Parts: sequence; C-alpha cells; structure tokens
Amino acid sequence: MHNVILSRCRELAQYTEEPGFTTRTFLSPPMHGVHAAVGAWMRQAGMEVSIDAVGNIRGLYSGVNANAKKLIIGSHLDTVPRAGAYDGILGVLMGIALVGALQGRRMRYAIEVIGFSEEEGIRYGVPFIGSRALAGTLDAALIEKITPAIREFGLDATKLKDAQASGNILGYVEFHIEQGPVLESMNQPLGVVVAIKGQSRFEIEFLGQANHAGTTPMDMRSDALAAAAEVIVFVSRFTQGMGGLTCTVGKIHVEPNASNVIPGLARISVDIRHDEDAMRETFQQLVQDEAAEIAARRSVKVSCTKLLEQPTVFMDEEFTARMAVAAPHAVHMTSGAGHDAMILAPHMPAAMLFLRSPGGLSHHPAEHVLPEDAAAAFEAGRRFLEILERLEVSHG
Amino acid sequence: MHNVILSRCRELAQYTEEPGFTTRTFLSPPMHGVHAAVGAWMRQAGMEVSIDAVGNIRGLYSGVNANAKKLIIGSHLDTVPRAGAYDGILGVLMGIALVGALQGRRMRYAIEVIGFSEEEGIRYGVPFIGSRALAGTLDAALIEKITPAIREFGLDATKLKDAQASGNILGYVEFHIEQGPVLESMNQPLGVVVAIKGQSRFEIEFLGQANHAGTTPMDMRSDALAAAAEVIVFVSRFTQGMGGLTCTVGKIHVEPNASNVIPGLARISVDIRHDEDAMRETFQQLVQDEAAEIAARRSVKVSCTKLLEQPTVFMDEEFTARMAVAAPHAVHMTSGAGHDAMILAPHMPAAMLFLRSPGGLSHHPAEHVLPEDAAAAFEAGRRFLEILERLEVSHG
Repeated sequence: MHNVILSRCRELAQYTEEPGFTTRTFLSPPMHGVHAAVGAWMRQAGMEVSIDAVGNIRGLYSGVNANAKKLIIGSHLDTVPRAGAYDGILGVLMGIALVGALQGRRMRYAIEVIGFSEEEGIRYGVPFIGSRALAGTLDAALIEKITPAIREFGLDATKLKDAQASGNILGYVEFHIEQGPVLESMNQPLGVVVAIKGQSRFEIEFLGQANHAGTTPMDMRSDALAAAAEVIVFVSRFTQGMGGLTCTVGKIHVEPNASNVIPGLARISVDIRHDEDAMRETFQQLVQDEAAEIAARRSVKVSCTKLLEQPTVFMDEEFTARMAVAAPHAVHMTSGAGHDAMILAPHMPAAMLFLRSPGGLSHHPAEHVLPEDAAAAFEAGRRFLEILERLEVSHG
Repeated sequence: MHNVILSRCRELAQYTEEPGFTTRTFLSPPMHGVHAAVGAWMRQAGMEVSIDAVGNIRGLYSGVNANAKKLIIGSHLDTVPRAGAYDGILGVLMGIALVGALQGRRMRYAIEVIGFSEEEGIRYGVPFIGSRALAGTLDAALIEKITPAIREFGLDATKLKDAQASGNILGYVEFHIEQGPVLESMNQPLGVVVAIKGQSRFEIEFLGQANHAGTTPMDMRSDALAAAAEVIVFVSRFTQGMGGLTCTVGKIHVEPNASNVIPGLARISVDIRHDEDAMRETFQQLVQDEAAEIAARRSVKVSCTKLLEQPTVFMDEEFTARMAVAAPHAVHMTSGAGHDAMILAPHMPAAMLFLRSPGGLSHHPAEHVLPEDAAAAFEAGRRFLEILERLEVSHG
C-alpha cells in the first residue's frame, strides 16, 4: 500500500502551473486535475466526495451508525513554487489509503479525509486558508480577498460557513514529512509531534549614513550594515548549544547596496522559535536589547517592527498518546514548522505523525520519502485506527 | 571671482537628463548645453575653444610664444545620477576663472583648460573616459563600446587619437572637492593631495545550504549569511585605529533572501584602500584568510573573485611642492577617491588641490562648497600660476 501512496504523490506532482516543476497555489487551474484524481481515489476507497466552498476536497467514509463521531485525517494539496511531491500531499493520500485498507469495513466512528486547498500562504501571503475555513476562523478581510479566486474556480464563496467542521468530532490526525533533519540524524523513520513551536518574527532596521567608501575614515562612519552584521553574528553565536531554540536572519535589505558606498540603511528579518513561549519572548527581548546596544555604539539609529507572534500550540495529550502507542518507536518531538494541525488543535483533539525527510530536504524538487518510512507510517496509522475503534467500543 | 565660479557651477547643474535633479552622464544630450555655456565663458576669458573626439571641451590660452610649454587645468563635467553641482565642475570653472583673472596677460607657458566628458563611469561602467583619451590609454574594446555615443553626439570617433595630449606639457593641475570629512574635521579649507590611494575590490561568496528556518537545529546549519556577517564584523573591528586604511562592505546579495529560510548563498563586496600598496595587499590577504577560516568553521564553501587592483598613484613631487607653496596652510593628505589626476599622473607632472566638503557630502544634491573656501582655492591657484611663471623665467 505504501508504494501506491508514494506513486500517487508523484502523479499529483504533474498538476502544475509551471511545466517542469511542481507549483500549485491556492485554487490555481491545476487544482481541478488534482481534485479529479483525488476524488476518484476517495470514491474507490468507499467515500462520498465533495468540494467545500474554500476548495477543500472532502471524502466521507461513514461509520456503523449515522450519529457516529468523526475522525478527520487531513493535510494540504497546494504547494510552494517548485516544490517536491510529498509536503502535504502525502498526508491526504495516507488518509485515503488507510480508509481503503478497511476494505469497506465500518468502524464505530466515521472518517473524513480532507485535502486542504491552501496551507503554504503563497497566493495571498496568508497561510492555512483551508484549515482556517474548517476551524471557522477566516476573517472578513481575508474572505473578501479570496472571494474572486473562489468564484473563478467555480465555487460559491457565500457558502464558506458550511465548510466549518460540525458535529461530534473525535479528533484530527495529520501525517506529514518532517521538513527537517532531526529524524534522519537520529536514524529514525517516525516522530510523534508533541507541540508546534511558537514563533516570533520581526524586522530590525538600522539607519546610518551613506557615504563614500574611499574618503570616509573608519572612525567617522555610521555603517548600517556593520551594525546589522553584529546582530547576525550575535544570534548565531548565542544560539549554539541552546537546544530547541532557533533564530534565523534569512532576509537582508541594504541601501544603496553599492560596493563603493558605506551602507546607510540595513534591514534584517529575525525569526525566533522555541516551544516555551516565555523563552521565545525572553530571547526576542535579548536580541532587541543587543541591537540597541550595537546601534548606540556605532552611532546608527535602530527600530524594530513586530510581524508575527504565534504562541506554541500543543497537540492533544490523550490523542497524541494514542498515536504514540500506535508508533511505539517514534521519536517524541516538537515541530519547528507550522501545520494545519496547529490551526485545528484549539478546536478539536489533534495529533501529528512525522515521516523522516532524507537530507532534511523540503520545498525542493528533490524532497522525498523512503518507502520503508511510508510503510512504517501506514502501519502506525492502521494501529491508530484500531486503537480508536477499541476505545469507542469500550466508551460506547 | 569665487562667487562667479560657484554661481556658474549651479548654472551648469540645470543641464540634466532628469528634471529636478542633476544627472549628466557621458555625452548625454544636456552635455550640449554645458558645452555651449562653458565654451562661451572660455572665449570670454580669451581662450580658443574646441571639442575633441571624446567630447572633452578644451580652451587654449596661448603663451607669450608659440612653442611655450603647456599647463593643463582640468576636471570633469559629467555627474553621477542625482548629483551635486560641484564635483568635477568646480575644477573646470576654477581653471576658466584663473585664466580670466589674467585679463589677457600672456605667460611664459600656455594654459589649456579641459572639461573632461566622463569621469564617473556611470554610462558604461568604466570611469575616466575623458582623461584616458588625453593619456592615450583608451583600449580598442572601450573605443568600440563608446563609438555609438560619440557618433550620436555629433563627434567623429576616428579622430580619438587627436584627443591625446601632445607637445611640451608643463603639467596637470586639478582643483576638486574632497568628497570626504577630513578637512572639515580639521577645520581647514584646503588640502594638497600627495597621492591617490590604491584600491582593491573583490567579492567573497559563501555557499551554504538553504534550509527551513524552523526545522533545522542551529548546530546542523550551513548559514551563508552568518559567515558573511562574521567577515563584515571582522573588517569593521580590525580597521578601527588603523589610520589610512579603509575597508568597506557596501553590497550584499543573499539567496533565497526569505525570512523563514536559512540563507544558502551570500555574496559581499569588499573595497580596501590604503596609500601603501604592500599594506593594502597584506590586508586583502588577511580578509581572505579570515573568510576561509570562518567558512571552514561554519561548513560553508567560500570563493573570492578579484574585481579591481589599482596601485597607489603619487602626485609629482616637484609640482606638488609648488602647489604646497601656493597654498601654505593646506593640509597634506591622500585621496581615497580616484580622480582624473590619477590617470594623467603617469604621463605628466600632476598636482591636486582639495576644497573642504561640508558634512563630507558628495554625490548628493546637498553637496556644496563654502564661498570662503572657493576664494582660498582661487587665491592658491593664482599664486600657483605666478610660481610657475617665475620658474619659467628662471629656467628660460
């Protein structure tokens, strides 16, 4: 079964906005082809298929009785530009394969497999549109923004409310590639996600004085880039050995950015993640204090602009314990990346299982999944469904 | 007279490619207007005016006899984009004013005032085109490059050879704004330039591994930007207190330059200047060694690409001594910026006089010159002409 999952991932990778690569943003034309293929596989596994107003494809596999609780298995079907074949997609096809493996056997709970229409945030700069619709947390401004795309795709934006999860939800489970090197470095195929790390994003801007590189003595400069470089070196040194803390300066903008002019302006992005909110906030303050001290010493002005403050989201303890039993050798870990499970966790019990990312690669055409890891995740999924079944029997 | 010089500078600032600013690149249309105005002032001062094949405007004020030696007073008439009114221009108008002040009196030497057509290197990325034509050092590739512009301006590129300085040259003298803060910081109006500092320009490229900012632990990163930042901090710290040495990282390029991706590539420009070639070369090696060490420690690859290697050019000792006598209070200094005098010094005795740049400003609309400094430079120029006259009398 795991080979079918992986080959289906590669088949869907052919639906793309950019020939030769896999690029599939929110409700772009190739998503029609994905819906047709995924819908056929869902029906084949015994599910009723629908597309909700935000473009999530939903396959419902009913339980033994009509008022059964519902387990949601989901992930996303959109991609970053020039993506790999597995990020998101794997979790949807894993859900379909798990239902298919029941071979028509009805459980004490219904199963809904959802392929979210948007998670990466490429088309509108806002991620998680698909799972936010399910959580009922799309705000009016965002709805207005995405309405033309919804209409163009042939859907009815006035029915967005109907996309919201309703009824008696047993919980949400998501299978996803790790997108990092941790499992590989531990030589382990699977990881049970305990929490999704909180994240602070802000920009630091240094304002110095642009000047002639040849005629301005070193001690008469207000070099904005030199100040920014000191912050970059500080965070990179400080974080060494601080397990669990990541701090990244990924983006830099310099003006005038000419080899013979002392930079007058330098702006850097700072991305800090940690699973303890207090630690993340403390380190954020530390970086800003350090930036202020560097700026004062170098006679440049400094300002910080906050862009994102996302607290740590914990997976459901009980639901995650069930997954841990289903995958007894899995590493228990936190996720440094956001996932649909992060959006849904405040609304229903949520659990996540990571599959090893060879080379730590993701968001790259070379992203892949080892067949034995897919097999291990599939077996964990089967056991998870059986554990839930046993619990429903004992509860019910 | 100095007020005339400064007001004429401001008058020429109105000839521009971009209304509201002063932008006048090599042989651009507004240069016709500049030639008309400068030519009229040259004739008014008693000079014969011609435009050579590279677009230099040349005013010849003959000496007492036909085979007299020739003193060249020059600077450039082109500008950077959104320039000030004085960089280059002032030296040309100073020459015209000095000839004008002779009021027809003939000297034992001829005087040629030259307004070079190109010094800044904006239009073709190659500076000093005007003075290179005078020095006879335009190479075939450059000539081919600039020929269309020459033809379009109405000149004959086949006559470029005639632009070369010929006959018995007494020397070259250039008045120019300092474009730096040194004279202002010493509270002095004038500086005699002893040498133009040598310059090394190269790029350092760090190649790491782009990766997810949230999922890649700090100790598993190959962060190209963090490595580049260490080099920037190193040069900025090392050069503190190293009088005369400047080292500037003015330009940085990062890929993919996204706030949530660890930079996989970072490329920085390095510009090193010092008046001792050996010191400059030693420091260049030091920066490259440091970059290699940082790269090794951070598991990134490093490569250096040399872009420019310009040795220090000394002004003529005797000719400069005459200028020093003419401007007895002037600071003796080196220039961190290149000038036409640097191109001509290997071919004829050359001297330069700097005027204070208030605020160290240049290449900026707010660039200016204090009237009393222009007056002091004008008086130094008059004395310089008289010193040369006395020497010609004693020699001849």
